[in-house]
Amino acid sequence: MPSTYQPPVATMRFLLEHVLDFDAQMAALPGLEEVTSELAAEVLTMAGRMCAERLAPLNLPGDAAGTQLVDGQVVTAPGFADAYAEFVEAGWPGLAGDPEYGGQGLPRTVQIMLDEMVSAANLSFGLFPGLTRGAAEALAAHGSNDLKATYLGKLVTGEWCGAMALTEASAGTDLGLLRTRAEPREDGSYAVTGTKIFISSGDQDFGNNIVHLVLARLPDAPAGVKGISLFLVPKFLPGAAGAFDERNAMSVGALEHKMGIHAQPTCVMNYDGATGWLVGEAGRGLNAMFTMMNAERLFVGIQGLGLADAATQNAVAYARERLQGRASDGRPGTVPIIAHADVRKMLLSCRAFVEPARALAAWTAIRMDVSDHHPDAQVRAAAAADVALLTPVIKAAFTDFGFETTVQAQQVFGGHGYIHEAGMEQFVRDARITQIYEGTNGVQAMDLVSRKVTLDGGAPLRSYLAAITVDLDRADGELAGHELVIAMRRALTMLEEASDTVAAAAGEADALGAAATEYLNLFALVSLGWMWVRILKAAPALEDARLQDTYKALAGYYAAYVLPRAALHAARIAAGPATVMALDEALF
Amino acid sequence: MPSTYQPPVATMRFLLEHVLDFDAQMAALPGLEEVTSELAAEVLTMAGRMCAERLAPLNLPGDAAGTQLVDGQVVTAPGFADAYAEFVEAGWPGLAGDPEYGGQGLPRTVQIMLDEMVSAANLSFGLFPGLTRGAAEALAAHGSNDLKATYLGKLVTGEWCGAMALTEASAGTDLGLLRTRAEPREDGSYAVTGTKIFISSGDQDFGNNIVHLVLARLPDAPAGVKGISLFLVPKFLPGAAGAFDERNAMSVGALEHKMGIHAQPTCVMNYDGATGWLVGEAGRGLNAMFTMMNAERLFVGIQGLGLADAATQNAVAYARERLQGRASDGRPGTVPIIAHADVRKMLLSCRAFVEPARALAAWTAIRMDVSDHHPDAQVRAAAAADVALLTPVIKAAFTDFGFETTVQAQQVFGGHGYIHEAGMEQFVRDARITQIYEGTNGVQAMDLVSRKVTLDGGAPLRSYLAAITVDLDRADGELAGHELVIAMRRALTMLEEASDTVAAAAGEADALGAAATEYLNLFALVSLGWMWVRILKAAPALEDARLQDTYKALAGYYAAYVLPRAALHAARIAAGPATVMALDEALF
Repeated sequence: MPSTYQPPVATMRFLLEHVLDFDAQMAALPGLEEVTSELAAEVLTMAGRMCAERLAPLNLPGDAAGTQLVDGQVVTAPGFADAYAEFVEAGWPGLAGDPEYGGQGLPRTVQIMLDEMVSAANLSFGLFPGLTRGAAEALAAHGSNDLKATYLGKLVTGEWCGAMALTEASAGTDLGLLRTRAEPREDGSYAVTGTKIFISSGDQDFGNNIVHLVLARLPDAPAGVKGISLFLVPKFLPGAAGAFDERNAMSVGALEHKMGIHAQPTCVMNYDGATGWLVGEAGRGLNAMFTMMNAERLFVGIQGLGLADAATQNAVAYARERLQGRASDGRPGTVPIIAHADVRKMLLSCRAFVEPARALAAWTAIRMDVSDHHPDAQVRAAAAADVALLTPVIKAAFTDFGFETTVQAQQVFGGHGYIHEAGMEQFVRDARITQIYEGTNGVQAMDLVSRKVTLDGGAPLRSYLAAITVDLDRADGELAGHELVIAMRRALTMLEEASDTVAAAAGEADALGAAATEYLNLFALVSLGWMWVRILKAAPALEDARLQDTYKALAGYYAAYVLPRAALHAARIAAGPATVMALDEALF
Repeated sequence: MPSTYQPPVATMRFLLEHVLDFDAQMAALPGLEEVTSELAAEVLTMAGRMCAERLAPLNLPGDAAGTQLVDGQVVTAPGFADAYAEFVEAGWPGLAGDPEYGGQGLPRTVQIMLDEMVSAANLSFGLFPGLTRGAAEALAAHGSNDLKATYLGKLVTGEWCGAMALTEASAGTDLGLLRTRAEPREDGSYAVTGTKIFISSGDQDFGNNIVHLVLARLPDAPAGVKGISLFLVPKFLPGAAGAFDERNAMSVGALEHKMGIHAQPTCVMNYDGATGWLVGEAGRGLNAMFTMMNAERLFVGIQGLGLADAATQNAVAYARERLQGRASDGRPGTVPIIAHADVRKMLLSCRAFVEPARALAAWTAIRMDVSDHHPDAQVRAAAAADVALLTPVIKAAFTDFGFETTVQAQQVFGGHGYIHEAGMEQFVRDARITQIYEGTNGVQAMDLVSRKVTLDGGAPLRSYLAAITVDLDRADGELAGHELVIAMRRALTMLEEASDTVAAAAGEADALGAAATEYLNLFALVSLGWMWVRILKAAPALEDARLQDTYKALAGYYAAYVLPRAALHAARIAAGPATVMALDEALF
């Protein structure tokens, strides 16, 4: 039984229209006034079809085939090049791209819903357009007009691909250690020399140009992160006739052998005096890269969500079909395993994560759209602060919970889940990278407690918590006494107290480090609970009473079985760093 | 950097000698009086050398090479056949085997410590002798004298291998659904026909015989589990000259493509009227198989522990070497990541599990030795009840926590952990099967709450909890005020209350199913905490004061960061099954 994927477009539309007030919010944004949840649903229906019919069928074969390096050229899995060409032809890479550069100018909110479906269907594939978009964003924000004129349009439409070349063997999280060098030439270009590892989409055989954004040091650069600059280094340079047909001095040193995303070429890249151009100011490379990285981090969180949903859908389907054991209610004969409480719990915990995660991702994306487009600078700033606050939470929690979800979904399959052909073990292996790349989840947690919590003196955090409080206070009628609201009040208090603890520890690296992951998890649990409150509040708008029942039951499960984790993280934060730092480094 | 493995023999000896009173306990067992922790450590030192020097180096290459099916014959990874021959030559398969059949008659306690090291070094390899031992145990307990005379000695010494053929495509957890048939022949043998899947060690190229124990139905057998009998079906039958050189009518239909344990041939087996002999009584096959399965389940738990330890050792080594970021204490320059609180937490949570898990495994194994050898039947029965109680806990919790540990250890490596060559992702993939096979962990949890808790009216459970209480009450001196003891008292109370809840729900499948996994986790957390109390109590016997500091710090971490999980599981048990059963099956 190969895995299947049903695009969750109806759910997405419900979230936009009834839970997140999408239409009214877009109406306030110049350039997006006409975008409605109806339009979004139409676009996403087409996108969903492409994901389910074109990308999902390539996922399992792509995992088996992997990528090859043949005579220095990456050969992608069968079907990937054609699928990419169709993807570009249909205009999907530029969905939220700048119309001035060939994009369709739709909101980021629609983009992240597309991202979720692409990731669910085929993560290895999704990284090609994903990294291309990241490169386009960095170039749009920091590139010179000349560079933009030449490269930006091709990246926005996806005609050319992008890659981010940051990591080196001894410089991962700590980019200050990187050694790649860029020597200025007389014509204003630079000769870039060095070796980068873990370069997703570093090369492929799609027959197009690949624009690498490479972090490197100028000859006179200071040590550490302040000596790092960003360079645009294309695979093909313009030749004598003006066409981009001259190979740059860069090559794939090797393809990494990875746990998952086998159909994604993760390259060791050698730059041997490759020609590049400075993007943004010298010494400000990390800053330019972070423009790209923040959007990428949200995208990675969405990948965790997408894989979790795909795995969950398959687990539910299997649990309905697989006959083992007897019913608890005395029905005669063998029953589908979905009848067993233990199996139901696994499925419930999967769905209790996926539904509010999708809502929280969309909430955050709407804040991005507001921060990009709102006419009022103060409104834009407040929205941008929300995005900054939520970015590490979504990246880390969605990928940690997403990985756990794929593992639970695999477990539902029993022994069959361990077999390649069922597709479940691939979800687990693919999900595992999302906890690691674009900054490990530990790094995200440190970002949250050491920078985001104290941003603007803590104002964005306070306003975020206040928004949750408002929704809890407004939970009236049947909802007022709902166990979710009661449990959420307790959990919110824990988060408020933990926020004070973390804010008070500002500058104390050990205290922050010990609290970081716990605080991020607590933050995420409360945020997902908040979305459940909003979903329940909106549920009466659903015509299908059975769907209302479903949300009610899932939210009830979240309150009873998931949200109690908040107290665990609060207890660990209260425990402080003493026991974490007690053991001598030599004695581990 | 390929992974390394340091056999934990010194720790094992400390546990036996000072924590578990091994010498005195063995002294009371006829036939084992002479076995001391000193002797055990000598044996384990040799075993550890073989694991580290012979088996560990084959682990990563074995994963890459996998197993092949060539012209119907399984070809194992390079080096495996030679290593197995050496393993047999050195007498390791029969370490705890019956001397009457060529075994060395050492305690099971020493055997499970060998099992841990073999699993840590090379799980794919370890399953060959592991399943052989299981087959030998079932045959010893249920086989006729004729069958034992022919097959048992060869299995005990490992000269021949064993395999367990239970699962069919539509009969996994629910073996009552199986269809393989056995037709009696006039000579007293049976013709076995059917297809089995997921058969570990089903075939190999070690040049020896493979004794399959196959579950099948007799022609007149009733439906369900009571119609199942067990048959011994060897790969080679005695030919005309008496030598076992005639191929039986059985063949490998396919090798499964799996997430991990790639060097272990997991076979689809076809029995096409293969010649077999009844083991035990007709219709009592499941009973005979459970003899084998209980020992196997403990072994699987030990696999989780072994993989966790191996992964942890490598994570610690990497965290000492990998330089990224600045120190919290103002030391100048870049520091090893082990200095960072977030990384320390990952390593501490790994070790905080591994150390007491090893102790609890040994405690249980000593109870097995007592149940096998003690002259007093009542003492034997009490010990057997302890083993029955702990078996599902060790199988499920050690593999769930073990898997989490391998994931955490992999995370310490950042991006490098996702790369095959580092060996960390293999630990994760290999560990994943331990949560599934020999009965999924959900099945183990149901076994615990529906059978083991109420065994003998709950007497074994009460006596187990009482033993923990006694050790907490005896924690005096410095230990009395230790946060571990304080936290353990709270957690033990939760476990006692949860035990009452579970006992009161006897017969209510939904209530038991909703509580099962939570109860098993709570039980395991308290049991591991108990072992920490015993380790701390014994620590002053250690000559190395630094090792005492290590245990103190790890136990402190366990109390502050791990044991608080107990409250989460207790809260879920208190929540009951209502929210688990609320959602209609059609609406998931």
